[in-house]
Amino acid sequence: METTKSTSGKPRVVIIGGGFAGLNAAKSLRKAPVEVTLIDRRNFHLFQPLLYQVATGGLSPANIASPLRWVLRRQRNCEVVLAEVVGFDLEGRRVFTAEGDIPYDYLVVAAGSRHSYFGKDEWAELAPGLKTIEDATDIRGRVYSAFEHAEHEQDPQLRRARLNFVIVGGGPTGVELAGALAEIARHSLRNDFRHINPAEARIMLVEAGSRVLGGFPDDLSAKAHLSLEQLGVTVRTATMVTAITPEDVELKSAVGVERWPTRTVLWAAGVLASPLSKALTADSQAEADRAGRIMVQADTSLPGRPEVFVIGDMASYKQADGKLLPGVAQVAIQQGRYVARLIAARVKGKASEPFHYVDLGNLATIGRRSAVAQIRKLHFSGVVAWWLWLLIHLMHIVTFRNRLLVLTQWAWSYFTYDRAARLITGDVPSDADLAALQRLASPPQQR
Amino acid sequence: METTKSTSGKPRVVIIGGGFAGLNAAKSLRKAPVEVTLIDRRNFHLFQPLLYQVATGGLSPANIASPLRWVLRRQRNCEVVLAEVVGFDLEGRRVFTAEGDIPYDYLVVAAGSRHSYFGKDEWAELAPGLKTIEDATDIRGRVYSAFEHAEHEQDPQLRRARLNFVIVGGGPTGVELAGALAEIARHSLRNDFRHINPAEARIMLVEAGSRVLGGFPDDLSAKAHLSLEQLGVTVRTATMVTAITPEDVELKSAVGVERWPTRTVLWAAGVLASPLSKALTADSQAEADRAGRIMVQADTSLPGRPEVFVIGDMASYKQADGKLLPGVAQVAIQQGRYVARLIAARVKGKASEPFHYVDLGNLATIGRRSAVAQIRKLHFSGVVAWWLWLLIHLMHIVTFRNRLLVLTQWAWSYFTYDRAARLITGDVPSDADLAALQRLASPPQQR
Repeated sequence: METTKSTSGKPRVVIIGGGFAGLNAAKSLRKAPVEVTLIDRRNFHLFQPLLYQVATGGLSPANIASPLRWVLRRQRNCEVVLAEVVGFDLEGRRVFTAEGDIPYDYLVVAAGSRHSYFGKDEWAELAPGLKTIEDATDIRGRVYSAFEHAEHEQDPQLRRARLNFVIVGGGPTGVELAGALAEIARHSLRNDFRHINPAEARIMLVEAGSRVLGGFPDDLSAKAHLSLEQLGVTVRTATMVTAITPEDVELKSAVGVERWPTRTVLWAAGVLASPLSKALTADSQAEADRAGRIMVQADTSLPGRPEVFVIGDMASYKQADGKLLPGVAQVAIQQGRYVARLIAARVKGKASEPFHYVDLGNLATIGRRSAVAQIRKLHFSGVVAWWLWLLIHLMHIVTFRNRLLVLTQWAWSYFTYDRAARLITGDVPSDADLAALQRLASPPQQR
Repeated sequence: METTKSTSGKPRVVIIGGGFAGLNAAKSLRKAPVEVTLIDRRNFHLFQPLLYQVATGGLSPANIASPLRWVLRRQRNCEVVLAEVVGFDLEGRRVFTAEGDIPYDYLVVAAGSRHSYFGKDEWAELAPGLKTIEDATDIRGRVYSAFEHAEHEQDPQLRRARLNFVIVGGGPTGVELAGALAEIARHSLRNDFRHINPAEARIMLVEAGSRVLGGFPDDLSAKAHLSLEQLGVTVRTATMVTAITPEDVELKSAVGVERWPTRTVLWAAGVLASPLSKALTADSQAEADRAGRIMVQADTSLPGRPEVFVIGDMASYKQADGKLLPGVAQVAIQQGRYVARLIAARVKGKASEPFHYVDLGNLATIGRRSAVAQIRKLHFSGVVAWWLWLLIHLMHIVTFRNRLLVLTQWAWSYFTYDRAARLITGDVPSDADLAALQRLASPPQQR
């Protein structure tokens, strides 16, 4: 595809990524005198905060995914291109995609992040992370298969190992996964098996830092920790995962090293910016931090490239007070809207202010009627926080249809404990697959 | 797994397959003095009649799938085993599974069917059929990718080929797929693209027989044919598909041979009974027809094996009037209930009647407000048939939650034309993949 130059003569804004940052940038350029091209390799916007509910069988993928073309169908100054971006020519102002080059006048890079195994890439198969729809259906298959395998298993020790779940990372995703798994084991599957008691499943949440939900105030971290334990989750803070094998995990803390037998490890720890970050730094004076995030200017632009902006999870933005902004949806949404305003102003020859983040707060759910919320200076926990969480998440889902479907399913699950989207689909790797992978991945001396 | 013999001393009924036949057999044994084991390799019952709506992005997989354990959770005389059946010892009354042997006193085999390429197995990758959730999401990805590729394509001829869809087989699935595709092209995608007009897509339905919906009365076939053409579908009856390549299909009819350029071929033609059919005929006096269906006795049992029953799509049942029963859901449901009654009676030492099929009618939908229905001697078409179709399908969906979700989404799609579950997920094979496959599959002289 050799995309034609803007026929209208208007400046062309190319946005890479249809996540919170990119989609909000595109929508906010609705009335600007520009031509917008939104490039994504997927044909939908994904509502990431609810991805853990797909991974635990509460919602279907389509309930949290909104087709980008549908969302933007009436925005006549916007075109959606389904393509993988492979590089840039920042000097020549072109984006390279697998389908051809796309020229730009303004470029907004919002390609997000993936999970990082801190150099232990061989853990990826054993401990899947949660970033895409495919990740979520993979985890869903593994979780429900674990109970199925336990039901078959005759050996009590192996059965126990099948019912041990280890979640690495105590941020919002890890906490939400742990809470949901505890509810599945205790309630959703209560009557389903004949040879095992699913409530005997042990869910362990491992966090390297000193507390769960490190981005929250101390008192809310403590409340979340307590709520998790009340749900039956074993929470280990200040504990590192030092090895993952198909049979167990090795944990290291101040008290020593221990091995936990388990067949199901879920990864909710580090993040790493999109590989496009490397292409950007190679072609400009921009620098990246250890997680690959581009250190941007006060207006989210690249140093020396005032027409190129990096926003959302790919950007490392230092506020005037010296603090780095966290990689959360609110930052991405506000940066998307900010960049749109900035570009619209600049096209009209007007000046613009630096980006200013308005911290609206922080929310994480732990389980049924249990959440923590910080709204400016107010701290909530328990039922009130849970209602806040429900309301705010429902409001942010992109299409009315999905709002309706999610609400219906939440109400249903609330009253029945049912998690009806618990399908085991696709290929769930067998034990033999995992063992083979592990052998390939291990250096010989460890065999 | 070495499953224990029935501890209660009650006869053990093993049912293979959780489709319409097997699930209805299991549920109807609820009050019988037996122990029931339902074996399936999937953890859910699939409502096949709506699978085409998943394949066209109208519904999510979980909306038409009901977890078997959840459906049967309160039936204390029933156990669900997630396993693949690999064979039988009919003499020793055991079922072999990948997880171990399972003994039985009564065996009900209801493992269904897959699609058949009439010996042209190399067509499988080029023309996917529609039997499983994975088939449906694969087809969904191919259909929506075709429009995406057309949007990119500069060459008008290749663009045209991208927008040609060929559906092979004019039974209910083929008709329903063709109707849904026509609506997607004309309505759902109306505002979504900037370089193509999706309404220019050409949907061709190819049927080898003399009319579409061969299982319906003549007048309804004619009405369905007309409705399809009004929707813009090109219907070719009495036409055979003689070749499928990554670039086109070859069609042969009385008027001659023609080639149609297309990149998207969907297979809704032949069916073939589960491979378990071979294992059954190898170990008994039973015979199978050309589609692998086992020819069963008047009580659906195997000849010479009164304790083994074959029902649903795997069975070829000849009625007293000499007619063979069709492979439809109603036959499977009634046979499942019948076998349950028969086993319950036999356990109590009572005799039983031969199976008698009550033909309740036949339904197929063509599109929005358009369907055909035959209820006993009454024939309906148009809006009335469409309402009947909606009502009867909603009634038959297994769980209340899914009934609610399906109804919500139908209402939404009806008013908005939106098909919101149109996600391109997993791996959609690229043109290069398909060409490579084709080269592998073709004998050298054809290259």
